Amino acid sequence: MSCQKFFEIPACKKLLSHAGVINSPEKHLKNLIKEENRLEKFSLNRAGVFYDFSRQRVDEKAMELLFELAEDRKLNEMFNDMVIGKKINVTENRAALHTATRSFSDDPVCVDGRDVMPETRKVRDDIKQFASQIHSGKIRGTTGKKFKYIVVIGIGGSYLGAEFVSCALSDLADKDIKINFLANVDIHNFGRIVSLIDPETTLWIVISKTYTTAETMANTKLAYAFMEGKGLLPSKHFVTVTSKGSPGDDPLNPVAGSFHMFDYIGGRYSVTSAVGGVPLSIYLGYERFESFLKGAEKMDIHAVKAVARENIPLTAALISVWNTSFLGYQAQAVIPYASPLSRLAPHIQQLNMESNGKSITKEGDFLDEPAGTIIFGEPGTNAQHSFFQLAHQGKAFPIDFIGVINPFYKEYQEKSKGVTNHQELWSNMLAQAMALAVGKDDDNNAKYFSGNRPSSTFLLEDLSPENIGRLLSFYEAKTVFEAFIWDINPFDQFGVELGKTNASGIRSNIAAKNENSDYAFDKTDPITRFYLDTLFAGRL
Amino acid sequence: MSCQKFFEIPACKKLLSHAGVINSPEKHLKNLIKEENRLEKFSLNRAGVFYDFSRQRVDEKAMELLFELAEDRKLNEMFNDMVIGKKINVTENRAALHTATRSFSDDPVCVDGRDVMPETRKVRDDIKQFASQIHSGKIRGTTGKKFKYIVVIGIGGSYLGAEFVSCALSDLADKDIKINFLANVDIHNFGRIVSLIDPETTLWIVISKTYTTAETMANTKLAYAFMEGKGLLPSKHFVTVTSKGSPGDDPLNPVAGSFHMFDYIGGRYSVTSAVGGVPLSIYLGYERFESFLKGAEKMDIHAVKAVARENIPLTAALISVWNTSFLGYQAQAVIPYASPLSRLAPHIQQLNMESNGKSITKEGDFLDEPAGTIIFGEPGTNAQHSFFQLAHQGKAFPIDFIGVINPFYKEYQEKSKGVTNHQELWSNMLAQAMALAVGKDDDNNAKYFSGNRPSSTFLLEDLSPENIGRLLSFYEAKTVFEAFIWDINPFDQFGVELGKTNASGIRSNIAAKNENSDYAFDKTDPITRFYLDTLFAGRL
Repeated sequence: MSCQKFFEIPACKKLLSHAGVINSPEKHLKNLIKEENRLEKFSLNRAGVFYDFSRQRVDEKAMELLFELAEDRKLNEMFNDMVIGKKINVTENRAALHTATRSFSDDPVCVDGRDVMPETRKVRDDIKQFASQIHSGKIRGTTGKKFKYIVVIGIGGSYLGAEFVSCALSDLADKDIKINFLANVDIHNFGRIVSLIDPETTLWIVISKTYTTAETMANTKLAYAFMEGKGLLPSKHFVTVTSKGSPGDDPLNPVAGSFHMFDYIGGRYSVTSAVGGVPLSIYLGYERFESFLKGAEKMDIHAVKAVARENIPLTAALISVWNTSFLGYQAQAVIPYASPLSRLAPHIQQLNMESNGKSITKEGDFLDEPAGTIIFGEPGTNAQHSFFQLAHQGKAFPIDFIGVINPFYKEYQEKSKGVTNHQELWSNMLAQAMALAVGKDDDNNAKYFSGNRPSSTFLLEDLSPENIGRLLSFYEAKTVFEAFIWDINPFDQFGVELGKTNASGIRSNIAAKNENSDYAFDKTDPITRFYLDTLFAGRL
Repeated sequence: MSCQKFFEIPACKKLLSHAGVINSPEKHLKNLIKEENRLEKFSLNRAGVFYDFSRQRVDEKAMELLFELAEDRKLNEMFNDMVIGKKINVTENRAALHTATRSFSDDPVCVDGRDVMPETRKVRDDIKQFASQIHSGKIRGTTGKKFKYIVVIGIGGSYLGAEFVSCALSDLADKDIKINFLANVDIHNFGRIVSLIDPETTLWIVISKTYTTAETMANTKLAYAFMEGKGLLPSKHFVTVTSKGSPGDDPLNPVAGSFHMFDYIGGRYSVTSAVGGVPLSIYLGYERFESFLKGAEKMDIHAVKAVARENIPLTAALISVWNTSFLGYQAQAVIPYASPLSRLAPHIQQLNMESNGKSITKEGDFLDEPAGTIIFGEPGTNAQHSFFQLAHQGKAFPIDFIGVINPFYKEYQEKSKGVTNHQELWSNMLAQAMALAVGKDDDNNAKYFSGNRPSSTFLLEDLSPENIGRLLSFYEAKTVFEAFIWDINPFDQFGVELGKTNASGIRSNIAAKNENSDYAFDKTDPITRFYLDTLFAGRL
């Protein structure tokens, strides 16, 4: 790709200039949405989902220029390179093949000339067999009882995706199996979980690519001690998801099952690998996990094959970059009008902010301004009664509304004010998008709404596993396309290293004090020293 | 207060100019924190908490000017006016007396010459008695069984605060009583909850000031029908928290208990009123709820009595306004290093964004730029493995770190790398604040950290009810002080009205179609019409 500065690309220069046009009063959204066939021109119905950007602050010219940028950045070609196994994670010299984990095609996917599909299929087969043996009771705990609790030990990419999906699909879950996530090294996370489970019937799933993540190792050590303290054998109650040959995949430390993850799967893109596969297949059943994969595959195929103007995640990425780099919005909200999607925003927050919160191009040059944006969100209508005051009358931020046409619970048809709860939910979702766009004049300044606040609306037919797969893949592809536009690498995360290094230094100081209570923290800076003294004093 | 524009206030002019100084390289945080006695000068240990702003981008001059602004805005006087019952919610002509709900003083608090303390005390006494009768089994369900489940029906301010506190203190809860929150009108929220409860032993607590909130009324109607369908009497299974004389306080619709809220308590400030009191006293026991109130009261007394330079919430508010209005940060993160505080950020998000996301002064004049900021957050260390990549190497945002000196679970002392989990947690919290401030030079641009990223650290001695009360009151007072600085009214929320009005119009259209399937949505705009047709078609 070019070493040209982002804002010096011809399409970007034109976009910068066109942003001035869009900021003019006649291009207020209340006018744009009145244009003939606005919705038809600014929406896509593809790959089983509907994506409406008619209430984004774009006109035909803006879209034309954005697609010119897409062409300049060779987005379709880049995405294809990713899917076929090229090493597009250049800083770590790795491929990025999360799409392979949900491929059911017979085509090979080669990295360095080696087809990775056989190992990927084998992991899926292993998971299928393992989950079935858990459900049938062929695999049981130390005392011969069937498993009723799973506790997933993992953090970040080994946690948020599986949590999002298990929460989204919990209505379909096996009611005899409860799932808990032990992510935080905070002892409260461990303490609460062990107060909820029955150790004899608990299976712990330890997820760590390297098997060295500090939090996961500390929690695993605690869990081992806890189970051994109850007279239960770790080899019967622990499962690992880790790299081949890691300390978690060591025959000298036998476990009830070990499932591999590969270097071409990044943590935040790993939900469809064994990272999500093992817990979700036990919690939901393998068939539902496979449906979820197949939904993701359908969106992947769309993302790789559809031309730019018909490509939903590509178009969404262009609009996201337009909002961030040209219109100057500093944050984006993800507001699903579906309470089962309550953990979508935290997952997308990680996926997008860890991928694209970067200051350098993938070639290592500093960007004019950092890429990425802040992502946050809560489900609607809850969010309306929380931060929507600021959305309407404070500093504006773009919103992704997500709607579901058919709810899972159809048996509750009681009406209030003539409508069912699901219809009330939709009334609100539709009203918000329009109120934000159009605003309202009022002689009373307190009741004046400036409007011109952009949003997209994304529809799913229902909350089936397949559609959750589509939704996941949409956001993954959107994130990756954004990175391609900004010319950054969405697959590394060097920004998390400094904190880890510093924590290690502080940990050593604490360990020294644990060994010798006379140890003074005189090698640390005075601020840190104050905190360490306070921690050991146990009071302010 | 003055009608002067914010940036024309002398202190603000000086602050704007001083922001230029702070943006110079020599005022980088890596230099500021090396100044002698930095921590002593830029921290406060008061009211049972510790607030450290040594890693905020302030020097002595900045603080001097901020306190000049505090004086100009008469912050102490304004706060005192609020606490003594003046009608500082000017747009709604109401007092704002959340502080009265946790006052255990004998002093009267008068609104329009009437002492409100007797009615406030009576509500607390009623709650105490009711909770005790639920626990003893004196009050039981239709079939004579003791209550084991409570479901709180309420949204926004009638939900997020009680959820935050119940989550923070759940380790202390009565293990025989489970709590669920039915906030969202989404039928999935209702469907999931009724799949988890035993109707015979369920008490529903309906919370709505006006008893007209659309979501709450729709859910209450469903819950009534559900209970009646099981042959259970609503009069034995429903409790209301509402205004005197509202439809929820009607003798013709008898309930198991009715508790009053008053017009001087705003929803997002209502956790310490009956809104939080009824569910929390049943879930935790009244004594713990009272300890929580007493912690909040201690912070209130500090907020009202401490001079500006020793006043923790006032200082925190000045720094928040400094970051937002003078340094240009667009968002603030709340990162508790304590997993029980996982719902703190959503509560503060509502409290702060709904209070301060405003475009006009309390006199009705437009601000130069909207007040308020985006608040978001997840617990650490989880957040480190999620969006901290962007925090370190993307666009900067200020962070509130919250630490807890003593964990609730002391029995798990297993060490990993020489430290306990709680010590590992602290190593990370301390490392992050310093890494963000100092940064790191590196010849490899990918490993370069610009630093100069501000944060505060707030310490609690433990997660006792009293300390959760302090934390809540701190954020309430900080929010209110921010509003006083910006000269806005933090107690109204006209920005939520337009969406409600529009939703009502769409609801009527849907109701008409429910009545008559031939009804065409030809009165709505074409975009909304497409969505309504899609909803009724049930597919894309």
